[in-house]
Amino acid sequence: MADKKQKDDCLFCKIAQGKIPSVKIYEDEDILAFLDISPASKGHALVITKEHFDNYLMVPKDLLAKAAAVAQEIGQAQISQLGAKGVNIISNINPIAGQSVLHFHIHVIPRYDPNDGLKLNFTPAMIEKFNLPILAESIKKGIK
Amino acid sequence: MADKKQKDDCLFCKIAQGKIPSVKIYEDEDILAFLDISPASKGHALVITKEHFDNYLMVPKDLLAKAAAVAQEIGQAQISQLGAKGVNIISNINPIAGQSVLHFHIHVIPRYDPNDGLKLNFTPAMIEKFNLPILAESIKKGIK
Repeated sequence: MADKKQKDDCLFCKIAQGKIPSVKIYEDEDILAFLDISPASKGHALVITKEHFDNYLMVPKDLLAKAAAVAQEIGQAQISQLGAKGVNIISNINPIAGQSVLHFHIHVIPRYDPNDGLKLNFTPAMIEKFNLPILAESIKKGIK
Repeated sequence: MADKKQKDDCLFCKIAQGKIPSVKIYEDEDILAFLDISPASKGHALVITKEHFDNYLMVPKDLLAKAAAVAQEIGQAQISQLGAKGVNIISNINPIAGQSVLHFHIHVIPRYDPNDGLKLNFTPAMIEKFNLPILAESIKKGIK
């Protein structure tokens, strides 16, 4: 861990360093996965990089690939081992999007019951019409 | 596309093949990104593999890595080009988790306003207590 960038007062850096305990489900040199202590459902897991990055947009692509693959394996295990019927894979960027701990993490949330009360509602409160081709041109300018 | 597995009557296979038009923002041999025609917010994008896989859990790891990286670049562009203040990166697996089109896709949803009405509420309706160490052991059995 000595060569990995860490941030003082970051909860997930402390978990990655073992200074705060966690219930681990996967660990390698770069990636740690553990169970959320405030789970949205049974087996709700978090995948993080051990090195500190503020969010998904900041993570080097090789580490992002590793984290995405671990999230995939956890989702498969939630279905095969816990009997989940579906999974949500979610990474929130910045507090406005619901990111509570400002260290990159992917939620892997198993779903068991259509009436479990979990809200993942993408429908906007106000329906707006957008000019999609113009938006697409703007976004393309920001992609390498 | 001829060597890529496709599924009849799959909306996103048809979009990948160009049989149904889309407003594209990124395309390479394996990956396509386009704007959601029912956007949750301005610039809501979808990243898919051109080849058909039912969901995130089914995608080969090399293609998953490519899709995750494209989602990252789109999120960065939504912030730099559209003025988004945050982003949600989401992939839903199976209808119980909110997957509506059964072809792997990652939502990249820019967020502009804390009061935009988008619900991404992970708090369960009923608070339950789980035995995390026992759950962790179960999940670990399903991870290679």
